Amino acid sequence: MRPIITLTTDFGTVDGYVGEMKGVIATHAPDVQIVDITHDVPPQDVERARLTVARVWRRFPVGTIHVVVVDPGVGSARAALAVASDERFLVGPDNGVLSPALLVAGMRAVELPVPRGASATFHGRDVFAPAAAALSRGASVDALGQEASSPIVHRTPEPTRRPDGSIEGEVIVVDRFGNAVTNLIGRRGGALEVGAHRVVLHGTYAEGAPGEAMGVVGSTGFIEIAVRDGNAATSLGLSRGARVVLHPGEIVAR
Amino acid sequence: MRPIITLTTDFGTVDGYVGEMKGVIATHAPDVQIVDITHDVPPQDVERARLTVARVWRRFPVGTIHVVVVDPGVGSARAALAVASDERFLVGPDNGVLSPALLVAGMRAVELPVPRGASATFHGRDVFAPAAAALSRGASVDALGQEASSPIVHRTPEPTRRPDGSIEGEVIVVDRFGNAVTNLIGRRGGALEVGAHRVVLHGTYAEGAPGEAMGVVGSTGFIEIAVRDGNAATSLGLSRGARVVLHPGEIVAR
Amino acid sequence: MRPIITLTTDFGTVDGYVGEMKGVIATHAPDVQIVDITHDVPPQDVERARLTVARVWRRFPVGTIHVVVVDPGVGSARAALAVASDERFLVGPDNGVLSPALLVAGMRAVELPVPRGASATFHGRDVFAPAAAALSRGASVDALGQEASSPIVHRTPEPTRRPDGSIEGEVIVVDRFGNAVTNLIGRRGGALEVGAHRVVLHGTYAEGAPGEAMGVVGSTGFIEIAVRDGNAATSLGLSRGARVVLHPGEIVAR
Repeated sequence: MRPIITLTTDFGTVDGYVGEMKGVIATHAPDVQIVDITHDVPPQDVERARLTVARVWRRFPVGTIHVVVVDPGVGSARAALAVASDERFLVGPDNGVLSPALLVAGMRAVELPVPRGASATFHGRDVFAPAAAALSRGASVDALGQEASSPIVHRTPEPTRRPDGSIEGEVIVVDRFGNAVTNLIGRRGGALEVGAHRVVLHGTYAEGAPGEAMGVVGSTGFIEIAVRDGNAATSLGLSRGARVVLHPGEIVAR
Repeated sequence: MRPIITLTTDFGTVDGYVGEMKGVIATHAPDVQIVDITHDVPPQDVERARLTVARVWRRFPVGTIHVVVVDPGVGSARAALAVASDERFLVGPDNGVLSPALLVAGMRAVELPVPRGASATFHGRDVFAPAAAALSRGASVDALGQEASSPIVHRTPEPTRRPDGSIEGEVIVVDRFGNAVTNLIGRRGGALEVGAHRVVLHGTYAEGAPGEAMGVVGSTGFIEIAVRDGNAATSLGLSRGARVVLHPGEIVAR
Repeated sequence: MRPIITLTTDFGTVDGYVGEMKGVIATHAPDVQIVDITHDVPPQDVERARLTVARVWRRFPVGTIHVVVVDPGVGSARAALAVASDERFLVGPDNGVLSPALLVAGMRAVELPVPRGASATFHGRDVFAPAAAALSRGASVDALGQEASSPIVHRTPEPTRRPDGSIEGEVIVVDRFGNAVTNLIGRRGGALEVGAHRVVLHGTYAEGAPGEAMGVVGSTGFIEIAVRDGNAATSLGLSRGARVVLHPGEIVAR
């Protein structure tokens, strides 16, 4: 089995930055398999990258190395990290993008030194790709740097329970289909308050009528606001941070 | 030779859904090569996915497994299919996206069961990726499910011959370059009626003058409406379904 | 080590053209590793493709084959090229996209014949992909065609030195972040004249204040105009060809 290095960036592909990283990896680790996660993170959107990493990193087999480069602070004093967590590895800037792995008990994180001659603007090529290649060849994270004292960790905000038994959460991300993923955990049944709307929490999209706004339990267990055959974010005017309240027992007249 | 699993979806890449599918495949079939066809099918555009599959599926070597997930009906009663056709394999929803393989004589199609615990909104990860991994490890389609009774098949509409010998067809898809691909088969020569325009059917784009609207025989044998160094769909106001008439013998004054 | 074939096109992915090319490569060279550089070159933008190739081609290991298909002249008399340069290979149209490799001393370039039955509109599939597969199996470029007499070479424009010691250059490309990459070489220090603005040439983005327009030495050694946490091209109205003047010794009041 060939080791896998995945790439998650906000570089797009046309400028060739990702191409350069792939070339560096292929040169230093010729037997590795390079797998694209995405290069379409909105420029410098650290939070969006964190959520993508959260969804993906443990789906890959043990030994996989995830390279995450959404790095508005490149060239500043922000540290460059290599992390070993749950038998996978991650490299990327110390700005929160690696949080999902940093929150796991027993993880190890080290600060990568910046090699002499590295570009001040492109650590993806000159710091992170070489570190990933080294890990794929069997280096331990401890061989790559000094222990990181307190890496930056971002968390998805927690919902709050209100006196009436309802639970107040918010939209964490709007996906490509216009589904608004919240931080609320739930099971089918109950009602959701989304701005001025009340919607039913269904089990699947297909339980809704075409054009109906609804809640549905998404593929990571969080409740999403969706419109069957439509775009919920556009229809309901939802974006990151919008308030959503779950009323677990309530029945909504349809 | 490592088996190939290709991916065709409408997921985009930034949300991590494709990343999750790749992780599941890499975990269950570590020696497979994952090849991206596209993740940019317009959301829920089953017809566009069907055309992409038609173009691609038999170009790959015998044994290739194509995973196609454009799936507006996920979670409903629509079946999940695995198909063996012309020595290749395809998995995806029973909504027409797999039609090109279902139309081949001698094909086998089975209905995939939905595993206990599968997400109701993401069969790409929980149904189709595991089935593809199983096929890559040598499972037969018959081992994966019961025979599908009558899978849904979509066909490209047929052109009609008119009394005057002309042939009436339509635009099937507009490509990235603004070329409008029709359902008309032809060879260089003759004229095309496109809305209020008459254009020559050339052999190559280069036979047209810069800015000239023309017909050209495209790379799958179908006639395309193109503008040299321009965008035919924009210039001539063409979209899917627009009527195009071929007058085979006619000479157009230029 | 498996040979690598990289792909750089303006095809997007949704139409399946790239999928067809990958299928042809996988069929004719089953042991090769296919690596996407980009399919998002703006349609028919030969110059943008040339710059992407320049950035990427030598980052890959010796033996890599780069396929570059941005080809507005497909089907015309323009030649199809295979190039051996600095122990790598490139195939693509003779329109300047392969210039970075053609400028290297000792390179070899041949004209690829168009196989009987090739589509007049899709040499990526019918000419370039098969040539790349042949190279990956060990064919020499000389076995693929006759020597190319005078392939087309485009160069990045040279800056000019002015009597007052300043150096006049221009914007070569605007990247995804809105950074305007120039043809000026420099080191930290000095001032840049960008339209009506004077900006400092910093060492890294992080040396600028948030929102500050600045120059910075980019990852290929060329000076870029950037706005920290912003988009320089939008803020300063910069596009390809915009004039930028370097005043090496000057100190800018901030």
